[in-house]
Amino acid sequence: MEHLKRLFDINPWKLATNELHHSDIRLQESLTSTGNGYMGMRGNFEEGFGGDNHQGTYIAGVWYPDKTRVGWWKNGYPDYFGKVINAINFIGMDIFINDHQIDLNTDTVSDFYQELDMEHGMLSRHFTIETSDMTVKFSFKRFLSLTVKELGVIRMTAEVIKGSGSIKVVSKLDNNVHNEDSNYDEMFWEEIAVGEGFVTAKTIPNNFDIEQFTLTALMENHATGTAISHKETAAFLATESFIFDVKEHDHIALEKQVIIVTSRDIEESKQLEVATSLMKEVNELSLDEHQTNHALAWEKRWEIADVVIEGDDEAQQGIRFNLFQLFSTYYGEDERLNIGPKGFTGEKYGGATYWDTEAYAVPLYLALADPSVTKNLLKYRHNQLPQAHHNARQQGLKGALYPMVTFTGVECHNEWEITFEEIHRNGSIAYAIYNYTNYTGDTSYIKQEGLEVLTEISRFWADRVHYSKRNKQYMMHGVTGPNEYENNVNNNWYTNYIAIWVLKYTLENYRRYQQETAVQISEEEMAHWEDIIANMYFPKDDELGVFVQHDTFLDKELIPVTDLDPKDVPLNQNWSWDHILRSCFIKQADVLQGIYYFNNDFTMEEKRRNFEFYEPMTVHESSLSPCIHSILAAELGMEEKAVEMYQRTARLDLDNYNNDTEDGLHITSMTGSWLAIVQGFAQMKTYDETLSFSPFLPKKWSKYAFHINYRGRLLHVLIDSQVTITLLSGEPIDVTIYNKEQHLTDTLTVAIEA
Amino acid sequence: MEHLKRLFDINPWKLATNELHHSDIRLQESLTSTGNGYMGMRGNFEEGFGGDNHQGTYIAGVWYPDKTRVGWWKNGYPDYFGKVINAINFIGMDIFINDHQIDLNTDTVSDFYQELDMEHGMLSRHFTIETSDMTVKFSFKRFLSLTVKELGVIRMTAEVIKGSGSIKVVSKLDNNVHNEDSNYDEMFWEEIAVGEGFVTAKTIPNNFDIEQFTLTALMENHATGTAISHKETAAFLATESFIFDVKEHDHIALEKQVIIVTSRDIEESKQLEVATSLMKEVNELSLDEHQTNHALAWEKRWEIADVVIEGDDEAQQGIRFNLFQLFSTYYGEDERLNIGPKGFTGEKYGGATYWDTEAYAVPLYLALADPSVTKNLLKYRHNQLPQAHHNARQQGLKGALYPMVTFTGVECHNEWEITFEEIHRNGSIAYAIYNYTNYTGDTSYIKQEGLEVLTEISRFWADRVHYSKRNKQYMMHGVTGPNEYENNVNNNWYTNYIAIWVLKYTLENYRRYQQETAVQISEEEMAHWEDIIANMYFPKDDELGVFVQHDTFLDKELIPVTDLDPKDVPLNQNWSWDHILRSCFIKQADVLQGIYYFNNDFTMEEKRRNFEFYEPMTVHESSLSPCIHSILAAELGMEEKAVEMYQRTARLDLDNYNNDTEDGLHITSMTGSWLAIVQGFAQMKTYDETLSFSPFLPKKWSKYAFHINYRGRLLHVLIDSQVTITLLSGEPIDVTIYNKEQHLTDTLTVAIEA
Repeated sequence: MEHLKRLFDINPWKLATNELHHSDIRLQESLTSTGNGYMGMRGNFEEGFGGDNHQGTYIAGVWYPDKTRVGWWKNGYPDYFGKVINAINFIGMDIFINDHQIDLNTDTVSDFYQELDMEHGMLSRHFTIETSDMTVKFSFKRFLSLTVKELGVIRMTAEVIKGSGSIKVVSKLDNNVHNEDSNYDEMFWEEIAVGEGFVTAKTIPNNFDIEQFTLTALMENHATGTAISHKETAAFLATESFIFDVKEHDHIALEKQVIIVTSRDIEESKQLEVATSLMKEVNELSLDEHQTNHALAWEKRWEIADVVIEGDDEAQQGIRFNLFQLFSTYYGEDERLNIGPKGFTGEKYGGATYWDTEAYAVPLYLALADPSVTKNLLKYRHNQLPQAHHNARQQGLKGALYPMVTFTGVECHNEWEITFEEIHRNGSIAYAIYNYTNYTGDTSYIKQEGLEVLTEISRFWADRVHYSKRNKQYMMHGVTGPNEYENNVNNNWYTNYIAIWVLKYTLENYRRYQQETAVQISEEEMAHWEDIIANMYFPKDDELGVFVQHDTFLDKELIPVTDLDPKDVPLNQNWSWDHILRSCFIKQADVLQGIYYFNNDFTMEEKRRNFEFYEPMTVHESSLSPCIHSILAAELGMEEKAVEMYQRTARLDLDNYNNDTEDGLHITSMTGSWLAIVQGFAQMKTYDETLSFSPFLPKKWSKYAFHINYRGRLLHVLIDSQVTITLLSGEPIDVTIYNKEQHLTDTLTVAIEA
Repeated sequence: MEHLKRLFDINPWKLATNELHHSDIRLQESLTSTGNGYMGMRGNFEEGFGGDNHQGTYIAGVWYPDKTRVGWWKNGYPDYFGKVINAINFIGMDIFINDHQIDLNTDTVSDFYQELDMEHGMLSRHFTIETSDMTVKFSFKRFLSLTVKELGVIRMTAEVIKGSGSIKVVSKLDNNVHNEDSNYDEMFWEEIAVGEGFVTAKTIPNNFDIEQFTLTALMENHATGTAISHKETAAFLATESFIFDVKEHDHIALEKQVIIVTSRDIEESKQLEVATSLMKEVNELSLDEHQTNHALAWEKRWEIADVVIEGDDEAQQGIRFNLFQLFSTYYGEDERLNIGPKGFTGEKYGGATYWDTEAYAVPLYLALADPSVTKNLLKYRHNQLPQAHHNARQQGLKGALYPMVTFTGVECHNEWEITFEEIHRNGSIAYAIYNYTNYTGDTSYIKQEGLEVLTEISRFWADRVHYSKRNKQYMMHGVTGPNEYENNVNNNWYTNYIAIWVLKYTLENYRRYQQETAVQISEEEMAHWEDIIANMYFPKDDELGVFVQHDTFLDKELIPVTDLDPKDVPLNQNWSWDHILRSCFIKQADVLQGIYYFNNDFTMEEKRRNFEFYEPMTVHESSLSPCIHSILAAELGMEEKAVEMYQRTARLDLDNYNNDTEDGLHITSMTGSWLAIVQGFAQMKTYDETLSFSPFLPKKWSKYAFHINYRGRLLHVLIDSQVTITLLSGEPIDVTIYNKEQHLTDTLTVAIEA
């Protein structure tokens, strides 16, 4: 693909470059984003940048409901679109050398270096700048603390290489920020108070009864070297300026520590007081100590989460980047939160919660985190059941419809073909309940909250299908499947399949736990569901031996992606929507998503035929697509395809596959590379409460290894010339390797199969 | 239908009421709109209204390109949506009785009367108001002159019934106006100059290279009675105040005459001068004389256009209202203009030009106006061929795609399911060329401009279909048919049919006029078109004997409108879009539209079967629908249905069938009642260059009569107990009545058939 772009060097633990990519600053900023789950930001330069760039800081759970604007209002549209909002820029340090404000966009710079150390969660940068008066080397390090979540630290040092004069540094808290995606350039903030070293701002009022969020930022700056300092305030702005008189070989430094508190935790009137007291606590340790604690916390995360790959540093860097950015966004610590599509790396798409969480993130958190993290994600949905009822009612339907995009549970996405039609999402909410229960063996959730959610989702499906007299079958019209490159199709195979699966799974568990649940399903309702289950229509083509994506898919002109002019890719940036919709090209695994979910329902021959039919037409312009293809290719022994798809998912952002990473990273698909290795290359399966592996080792790799938590055990899985599974903690367990069940007490080793 | 609402009394020539409909002022305003083709306005009260209402004045061809705002941008969207903009309110007269400002919303009023005299184009109103000091009867008359198009006249008189004191009248030119549909309440005007008695304003700049329009309004006010007058100016506002000292039985009057000129005709710098000189010319006649001239001009229009109905004043009022409002909007005098969907009666929908013009207006103008009017409408499209090329290119397609909504020829509608998919509109542009040529016998247009347009439309169709290998047929996927209650369907029968018809008609005429046209179509291209023509797929169902609206229509749950809960109608105001799309209910004739267009292609049995199948599922929530059903019902001898549908089209706004007339009138469907009578009840057909009639007389009616122009003749057609056709001017001609050809030299009379 002609547009692929790799800004950073290959390195197993780092994103590093000696190049300042002037015309790709947005991309560079996206890739060097950092976050600690509580807040995060793009890799903006502390001193600002005069060229095209995107300054962005985001605080988890702080958002604004922006009025829905569409050409033609359609009943059922949500009133507002929930936007992730750009919050106070607290890293800012304007720098002047003898009154010349430095700007890497225009200044002559040498020795540029930028590094994101993923092992320790540290972003650093240095460069040497030569003005007519002086040559100075500036270095920056910053981190958002994992150990004190409200704390951000920016450490600037400067060394005068040549010349003398003054260096002025203006450390800022600057709330003069806009969303790039705002309509009509509105500002989403109003000022509450600005004082010496602090800013308090509040999101502007809205007409939708959504809370306004208040945020207070408090800073302290500590200079090393002789400096005159001076504090000022302006609208939305608090500054502290330092003027250093310097001569050749002088070293100066400015350490900035910022505390951010919001009304999500602290009411507005107490924010300054709480921030001040937090700052005092922070000052009980040195910044070096904070930095060490932060780095250790990252190391601890890696202990279990890391996937070690030897023999392919591109692959190694890719998966670590994905895990780093995923954990920077969400580590399961705040049950009110979910995993936003761009995390803290941009403001596109809006909303905090997508079906991506259930479909792609849950399997990873099940394996890498305590089960309580996943249970929290499930409870998040259970808590939003009233809103899901509301969403269904908006469409005139019974039961519960979980939203496509939301902050509160109320749908806030406003394209009818998505909002009203991409209802397969509802199936993934149910699937995650199955996933959790099956993986952990913990039935406590499904018996109570789970069955309630399942039942309401089932009621939605039962109302959403219709009986076609002509065909004497139930059908589901007017949906958009996972493949968003077709809209308003009839009988999307995947949607029909998952809908029926939900009905079956609900009935099965209702009957199993009927005595233990408060849920009531009448005999009549059950009979109706059974009727739907028995008489649902699933499009398929016997001649081709494939499940048909939807009713008229096969009437299209069917051509492979390889026949496309490379200039046309990505299609969504080069073709009209009309052209895309009418084409056969698939944005994202659709039938194959179903085969991935319900893998055990299909024969290898069915899997192979469908993969061979759909894969060549899939353009993977959704970041959620390649991992599913990688997993299925691995199962089908198509090693090359599996590795290609792994590469695509692992390096989606690092190599800018979809030519849109400048807008932010694809956070919710960051799990894809992990899924591809664990469920794909290693073929880890947990179907029917059994654990199995059938690994292969990609040709280029000499080894890969990972940990998984499974039902109270911690396992280490190592694939090199052998498959070695080690039980690091917990009770012995049966493990099936290459279809042979074995008992794992300590270590199992078997030869790798080709 | 529960929501039907009739504000005005039944009267053959008038809309009159003694009621002030406080909670339906918007509806009342819409219905009492007036216009003279150059400008127009809603029936707003001169003195303003404090309650919910919609002040609206509109100037033909003055618009603003408002940035397209959608949730998710799709390639191919137009940059802007062209909005009809609310222009200066020039009728305003604030009225004070001893400092009490009168407001019919809150004041106690007796003797209220409002009347729209359609015969003479005059809007009048009177009421008596009682304050603590005085009782005064106010009367207003106003008209927008047909003879001096820039002139608007407002005549106020007041009679003091009781008491004495002062009456103050503030006559205003007020450009402080907003569009209700603006995003974020922007104002679309900026002030250029305000002086004594005039305001000059200009539309705000835009980023789309669309001209800014300047408008100058100049007023003179003449008082009758002793008054002190005083002129003032403010932002966007010029006023002249008159204070009358009055005592019981005094009569006072204020006559206001306003000249409106715009940059469409007069450059900004000369507008005040030109307006002043026009005002001087106007003053050469008295306002009584202007009023008489205006009334005579309306009478002249009615001489030919009027359809006389006896025995059913509801029906009579309906068609006159339609013709009155249609001619108020467009009378073919300015070839730069077209027929906007709301005319001068509201600002919804935007755009000036829809396919409605070609499909519904052309037949009427062909029969009632000089052929040059229709030719101008055709030339309007030919002039916009480059923009139609642009529109096709936006979708990545060849040839020409005429817009759904436009001011300039460039598409400005921004819903993908309409803009990108409702491409059947392109067929109607071609159909109008056929209609003109076939009706007038004038081949000069088709030989030159017409063939160019036809060829480019054909190229679009040839590129838009695809060959389905599986079916060995050409198909057309991803369209929205005339029934906008289904989107993105495959093989909409109507669209496929008209596309193939265009290819055939183009080939036929190209071959006929090849020697006389500059158009070049290669043998290869012709062969390709022939291949498409020969192998196009048209969905049909042999068992039901119907053409199928689109591929999967018959899979739906098929239920008749009569099974709907009346509370759910209109569906578009009560059902979610999802519900509507999945239902079988048809917004507007779709297959039946095709049978109407290509009537001669089908047997009576085919017509009957399709009508009986589709009619019961049609909700007619498009104003364009019932007339087509009326025409076909008439042909099929279903008199009751034909009359019901006539009633619905003729009184659509008068009885508020679609519960949306408060937004403005359905101008482009105003021809529907005329079509229903002439092409329906009278069954006038002009197929294959022959003129025929097969009239029936609705039971309740004792007579109906109308004129038509046909190939240089003026005919009068009278249906009572007989069918009487009189040749009023022009050469004798053959006319077929009830399938019997007769030679008309003077008058033909045949008995009416049941």
